[in-house]
Amino acid sequence: MARRPVIGVMGAGDGPRPQDLVMARELGAAVAREGWVLLSGGRDIGIMDAVNQGARAAGGLTIGVLRASDTKGVSDAVDIAIVTGMGSARNAINVLSSDVVIACGVGGTGTASEIALALQSKKPVVLLNDSEDSRRYFSRIGGALVSVADTVEAAIARARDLLAAAR
Amino acid sequence: MARRPVIGVMGAGDGPRPQDLVMARELGAAVAREGWVLLSGGRDIGIMDAVNQGARAAGGLTIGVLRASDTKGVSDAVDIAIVTGMGSARNAINVLSSDVVIACGVGGTGTASEIALALQSKKPVVLLNDSEDSRRYFSRIGGALVSVADTVEAAIARARDLLAAAR
Amino acid sequence: MARRPVIGVMGAGDGPRPQDLVMARELGAAVAREGWVLLSGGRDIGIMDAVNQGARAAGGLTIGVLRASDTKGVSDAVDIAIVTGMGSARNAINVLSSDVVIACGVGGTGTASEIALALQSKKPVVLLNDSEDSRRYFSRIGGALVSVADTVEAAIARARDLLAAAR
Amino acid sequence: MARRPVIGVMGAGDGPRPQDLVMARELGAAVAREGWVLLSGGRDIGIMDAVNQGARAAGGLTIGVLRASDTKGVSDAVDIAIVTGMGSARNAINVLSSDVVIACGVGGTGTASEIALALQSKKPVVLLNDSEDSRRYFSRIGGALVSVADTVEAAIARARDLLAAAR
Repeated sequence: MARRPVIGVMGAGDGPRPQDLVMARELGAAVAREGWVLLSGGRDIGIMDAVNQGARAAGGLTIGVLRASDTKGVSDAVDIAIVTGMGSARNAINVLSSDVVIACGVGGTGTASEIALALQSKKPVVLLNDSEDSRRYFSRIGGALVSVADTVEAAIARARDLLAAAR
Repeated sequence: MARRPVIGVMGAGDGPRPQDLVMARELGAAVAREGWVLLSGGRDIGIMDAVNQGARAAGGLTIGVLRASDTKGVSDAVDIAIVTGMGSARNAINVLSSDVVIACGVGGTGTASEIALALQSKKPVVLLNDSEDSRRYFSRIGGALVSVADTVEAAIARARDLLAAAR
Repeated sequence: MARRPVIGVMGAGDGPRPQDLVMARELGAAVAREGWVLLSGGRDIGIMDAVNQGARAAGGLTIGVLRASDTKGVSDAVDIAIVTGMGSARNAINVLSSDVVIACGVGGTGTASEIALALQSKKPVVLLNDSEDSRRYFSRIGGALVSVADTVEAAIARARDLLAAAR
Repeated sequence: MARRPVIGVMGAGDGPRPQDLVMARELGAAVAREGWVLLSGGRDIGIMDAVNQGARAAGGLTIGVLRASDTKGVSDAVDIAIVTGMGSARNAINVLSSDVVIACGVGGTGTASEIALALQSKKPVVLLNDSEDSRRYFSRIGGALVSVADTVEAAIARARDLLAAAR
């Protein structure tokens, strides 16, 4: 089996905190350096754009799974666009297609749905610098599937362990 | 326009608390008595089954939007099954099709995804007897879209107001 | 099990032939008189609107499974709108949710996809007054799943037999 | 914009003709040599497997958009699996994500649905060695969107023209 690990990174499209954008860019670069494929919502805004830009700059392969029915508004750092035309229903595809899901920064309702859908599908989720109420809530309903990380390095280390355990 | 109001009720399939099952049955009956259509995930377990049984007993019309690709496992109190074959992606349909979403009892990951997807689509959500951490988290990310209710009567009253405001 | 039979009627939204619109209206009325639920794409144009108007006038229950993410453009003869926000992917839901699919009149690409998706899911399809090349093509790839009818009466009779056989 | 052209190849999973399997393998290799990304249904059977094996052997990048909710049954020549868990509804994603759709060999109901969905979304479709009744039917309902090819070389040349025209 030659398939490469796929790391799904989810985060706010609208109104991300500046520090979360910086972190997303570092996270994308780190995913690329590990040789993992980056999967995201693929838009040209917020965490989605930043993580793709980081991965692209580090030579990674990037997949964007789009809500729209065409490629308008896709990040120019996305290599391959999966065009679903399904709106939020595509959130379910994002998590099923990822070996590990990393929620990056303080997320909104879209990110919350992706964390919950990941847990419903028994996918491991790493909450990277998410808010305290999110950590508490998802740790309770997700149990051992949920990890918490404060740095990109810690999130990558956790993803490495999760990928190793899944082999 | 003759379309009837649709109330989506979401809740745990597996392992609901006994008091939540009782409440779900009352909620289904109350939705039916208002003349509203009940929409749910349609399965024959947990909150889904209880709310449909309540609505059916009170003479209501019940729609089940199923994850499966056939009608195996559908509640026998569902009048019309919408068979999606889409797994969790159907959660997005449940909330888009509902005028008001009521999360009934302490929910798991599936309910959490439906609450989040509803908020992402700007649908009003009533949290009926949900846990404290869920109330706190979703009230923060959902803002004015989220209401909290402790009784079936309060949830129905809130839904009535929300439907009136949407006219 | 109290679920009522669901008949899915598919047909051209844009540019239907006038005689197909007349037939769709009759078909909707006949479905309603049988006590079956009518399921369609639910829009306010073409065959979709005509079949719903016919069913409504005859006192039937009508479900519209919408491509859009809201209820704009829904036929005013649809009782319950299932809002998918999924574009053409909802075509798969239409056929999975129907006990029998009737393709009404000479259809376009959307209808063709629904016939093919129905056959892929092993659902019986009745081609009512479809074109000769469509009858030939789908009869070959669908085999015994495909029936041909020239009148509303014949289509209804065939649906009745198919429903009886499925019990 | 660095996104690479994506060519979607659709064809029978079950019971393909031997000559169609040979042709699918050649087609996959030719897509890879053009530097295009190959997108398919991704399974380890029939045309899907053959086209991926051809592309892989020629050094191409292969995406499999799966009906299933996990990666069981995926072709071992797929580099990246998009796991939809949506059954036939994923057929809509396959065509929306492809710049050009090539239907390879005499297809069944699944391929028919993908051709029809592509045409509904205004995507160009090349019918490579499909049956006469399929060519006739889809050429009529699809008009200028449908091309016919008898050899892999002709299909690739047509795809090249279609990609150039879309720039």
